[in-house]
Amino acid sequence: MERTHYCGNVTEEFIGQKVSIKGWVAKRRDLGSLIFLDLRDREGIVQCVINNDNPEAFQVGEKIRGEYVVEVVGEVVERSSANPNIKTGKIEIIVEKINILNTANTTPFYITDESDVDPNLRLKHRYLDLRRPKMLNNLMVRSKTAKVMRDYLDNHGFVEVETPILTKSTPEGARDYVVPSRISPGSFYALPQSPQLFKQLLMVSGLDRYYQIARCFRDEDLRADRQPEFTQVDIEVSFPSRDSFFTLMEGLVKDVFSKVKGVEIQTPFKHMDYQEAMNKYGSDKPDTRFGLEINDISEIVKGSEFKVFASPLSSGGTVRAIKASSTEGFSRKEIDELTDFVKRYGAKGLAWIAIKGGEVKSPIAKFLSEEELQGIITQMEATDGDTILIVADTIKVTLQSLGALRIHIAKKLNLIDNKLMKFLWVVNFPMFDYDEEEDRYVAAHHPFTSPLAEDVHLLDTDPTKVRANAYDMVYNGQEIAGGSIRIHEDEIQKKVFKAIGLTEEMAQEKFGFLLEGLSFGAPPHGGIAFGFDRLIMEMVDTENIRDVIAFPKTTSASDLMTQAPSTIDEKQLEELKIETVK
Amino acid sequence: MERTHYCGNVTEEFIGQKVSIKGWVAKRRDLGSLIFLDLRDREGIVQCVINNDNPEAFQVGEKIRGEYVVEVVGEVVERSSANPNIKTGKIEIIVEKINILNTANTTPFYITDESDVDPNLRLKHRYLDLRRPKMLNNLMVRSKTAKVMRDYLDNHGFVEVETPILTKSTPEGARDYVVPSRISPGSFYALPQSPQLFKQLLMVSGLDRYYQIARCFRDEDLRADRQPEFTQVDIEVSFPSRDSFFTLMEGLVKDVFSKVKGVEIQTPFKHMDYQEAMNKYGSDKPDTRFGLEINDISEIVKGSEFKVFASPLSSGGTVRAIKASSTEGFSRKEIDELTDFVKRYGAKGLAWIAIKGGEVKSPIAKFLSEEELQGIITQMEATDGDTILIVADTIKVTLQSLGALRIHIAKKLNLIDNKLMKFLWVVNFPMFDYDEEEDRYVAAHHPFTSPLAEDVHLLDTDPTKVRANAYDMVYNGQEIAGGSIRIHEDEIQKKVFKAIGLTEEMAQEKFGFLLEGLSFGAPPHGGIAFGFDRLIMEMVDTENIRDVIAFPKTTSASDLMTQAPSTIDEKQLEELKIETVK
Repeated sequence: MERTHYCGNVTEEFIGQKVSIKGWVAKRRDLGSLIFLDLRDREGIVQCVINNDNPEAFQVGEKIRGEYVVEVVGEVVERSSANPNIKTGKIEIIVEKINILNTANTTPFYITDESDVDPNLRLKHRYLDLRRPKMLNNLMVRSKTAKVMRDYLDNHGFVEVETPILTKSTPEGARDYVVPSRISPGSFYALPQSPQLFKQLLMVSGLDRYYQIARCFRDEDLRADRQPEFTQVDIEVSFPSRDSFFTLMEGLVKDVFSKVKGVEIQTPFKHMDYQEAMNKYGSDKPDTRFGLEINDISEIVKGSEFKVFASPLSSGGTVRAIKASSTEGFSRKEIDELTDFVKRYGAKGLAWIAIKGGEVKSPIAKFLSEEELQGIITQMEATDGDTILIVADTIKVTLQSLGALRIHIAKKLNLIDNKLMKFLWVVNFPMFDYDEEEDRYVAAHHPFTSPLAEDVHLLDTDPTKVRANAYDMVYNGQEIAGGSIRIHEDEIQKKVFKAIGLTEEMAQEKFGFLLEGLSFGAPPHGGIAFGFDRLIMEMVDTENIRDVIAFPKTTSASDLMTQAPSTIDEKQLEELKIETVK
Repeated sequence: MERTHYCGNVTEEFIGQKVSIKGWVAKRRDLGSLIFLDLRDREGIVQCVINNDNPEAFQVGEKIRGEYVVEVVGEVVERSSANPNIKTGKIEIIVEKINILNTANTTPFYITDESDVDPNLRLKHRYLDLRRPKMLNNLMVRSKTAKVMRDYLDNHGFVEVETPILTKSTPEGARDYVVPSRISPGSFYALPQSPQLFKQLLMVSGLDRYYQIARCFRDEDLRADRQPEFTQVDIEVSFPSRDSFFTLMEGLVKDVFSKVKGVEIQTPFKHMDYQEAMNKYGSDKPDTRFGLEINDISEIVKGSEFKVFASPLSSGGTVRAIKASSTEGFSRKEIDELTDFVKRYGAKGLAWIAIKGGEVKSPIAKFLSEEELQGIITQMEATDGDTILIVADTIKVTLQSLGALRIHIAKKLNLIDNKLMKFLWVVNFPMFDYDEEEDRYVAAHHPFTSPLAEDVHLLDTDPTKVRANAYDMVYNGQEIAGGSIRIHEDEIQKKVFKAIGLTEEMAQEKFGFLLEGLSFGAPPHGGIAFGFDRLIMEMVDTENIRDVIAFPKTTSASDLMTQAPSTIDEKQLEELKIETVK
């Protein structure tokens, strides 16, 4: 008999009806004259009862074990003792017929959300891990989020286009995964790090509005929150004004939060200049759910003879501080822990000034003049119970360490209201970063990003000062999307290539097709890409990227279930004309 | 000023209004006191007029060349001489302001549907090729088709899941594309030929209904209608009955044809047994828009001394025929052409018997008895004007050549009504094919296909007779989808692996994770995959797969635009610990 309902959907509205369900045995209790089965499918669990006045069914029931797959036909009746925790808790199904559709070996772990299982065992038996209700729900939320985004984009004139996975290696950015060509031995395809150039060329085609939920690849050393393949919602439009594009994207995010998470977010989002974000929050993705803003106190101490301050200031560095309020003040041990924390970000130490019971306490007080000490306290508006925490170093190290410290302290002191949802556009990123390893300027975003119109003239004279028309969408301190207005004129594109050290010949070799495309009537265009995996992590409230990807890889980029990567036949290598090297 | 309309949407309903449009200059005519511009965007073309009483705009107009990108603000007025061929043909826009947003070099070919351009030039400048209205429309139809399918599947409880692209090489089926691992030197990922095992394991998880518009990869020698990467709409369900699954899939196709092509198709589709398809049509994807069915005349000629018939019959072969009706009969030259045609399919020749003016004409008549000759004419129901075409050979060659011949003749004689839409389910394929090259049985569909329940017992005794619970959806002689009910019991799966020559050890090595998955409570399940590229070809009426893929590759698997594949840096090879071999 065909299924009439999902297990999890048999509620009291069907009392008195005959239903046919199929599912997995989550629990079995044999009471002698009655056998109770909890039957589970993706929608939930329902209780079935086999009575021994139905000997045929009862015999089957006696053979059943956990995770057997069964089909049941029976009548829905009211349950004597309701279970308020589940949707089907007011009813049970009196089994008329039951068939075993498949048996099951004993599973290596229990199929419940609660069981705490070794992560590698979960990955090895991913099909069982995914059987856990929370994991199945994550997959369903992911699918729904994709649907909501597609519907929104479709309703706004976007065309979904699939761009190639077998494409060209352009060693700018992260390391490529490559694929040897059998037909052209010695040549390789690369898997795309993003569909960037294809989407720009689709704008040259006049497609006008493009999107793709695109698989992207980076062969990087993996951190816990990275995967070798990941998904981005890739978007590009022609003839954009930045503000109308922001509005369009805010509408998209609003729809996702509303339809998937059931929460209404406020638009428009605040804009924040990159410089402001760095100076106040020490981060280009500031979490603005709490204060603890960074203050520059260099001016106050610029004449100080205290070496810890004087030395960085004399070599272009800075002295900055945040103020933490804690009724108790920090203990010596806590200060040591905070000091160790900033050292991880390269800071040499952490100076502090506390005010407690009206008294100033500080190990550095003796090195500062009274004027300097009071100047710092006044600027930081410190009062009783406050501790001023100071880092003096290069600008980069100071901001990085204080930026991390403010988040660390906010978590420690429980300053973050988890109900707040703070969205921001961070704008006007620098165009170029200096790469010390390669001793050259590199594109901070990517080399196809347009400079701000008012900074274009600096490309020839002072590239370091050029700001990019790039933007990130930041949510509670996470970058959930990043993008830019692109260069649409081949002459400007050539100047940017030159600024990052590409000769004309190299630029032609790598990006000739883009330059040519731009020369045949490219429209002004720009776009964005959402980190889809991260977005789903926000939707289901997990901090583990593996919880939102059906078949993820480990931090050594292997799939514990299929055992990929693995060796391949000699014949395959021969056909590809490659050899592996010890 | 922000765009108010797409060029192609400015119709007479906007007469008297001011509009702002942006687009490409498709045509420019300078009449001295007036400059006419046809402005094009993805929605169509609109005529703009610059009058020399607007000197500022006129000056800009004088600089404009073909494919420049411009923005125009102006008033919509009625046109004096309407152009009935375009949607905007009743109006024109009197230019108030015009700006050049980007210039354009002279394009290597004209951007119109009509221009006949070298295919390689089109691929090199794909961004210009896609600018042609028909090509842009193909991309939009592709996007719309995906949307319609997703909506249908979503409304029927399907969950979209992304499966890995970096996965395990399982050298069963076509050749894999492989990706060397940097972290595990000597190991390789493979790009998926289909997400087959992942979708089955998602059923083991209890996902119940899965779909994905999935990129798949095959490193095969390419024919004109193949691409190294292609897209399939991949579907899997748990607890299916074959009939209810067919109904579900017919609904999906009905929706696509109705919403994308605007035609209503009849459901349910006819079912045809594989054997019937082969015997009547010489094909497992018969085109049933016309007759010309194949007849087996072996019985009639089984006693014949005519060597051409006797020889194949004595060695297990067959003699079969089709009947073509043509008022004129075929000329000698036409018969020669048909003979050459069947030879391409391995036939040694083509015998024929024509009836013309009441007389039987046939070069083989003298080798046949009168009884045999009349027997053939009677069985074929041949009358005046008919020609009987006969192939005698092995069953395989005979059916293949006559199957191809009936299509060839149908096209030649214009027997195909292009308005007909004939859908079929071809069912009950053989489970195993004999691979002569490898001298072993291989899975005809794939080794995860379930045998028909009534044939399972033959697995141990006579595997060649086992029929598979596999099915193809055939439309006008094209396979548009193929699938099967899968094996859900590990013991049967092991038997099938054994039948195709895998030892227990090999089966564990390659498919251990599947066998294990099946052992922990796998539900009965089955599915299908639609060839998405081919489906779009039907939607836009093209026979060229490159017309429906944004950035396709050539038959030597290269991308003429980006020049992929290409050489990569020595450093990349070193990191991957591989070397290329001359």
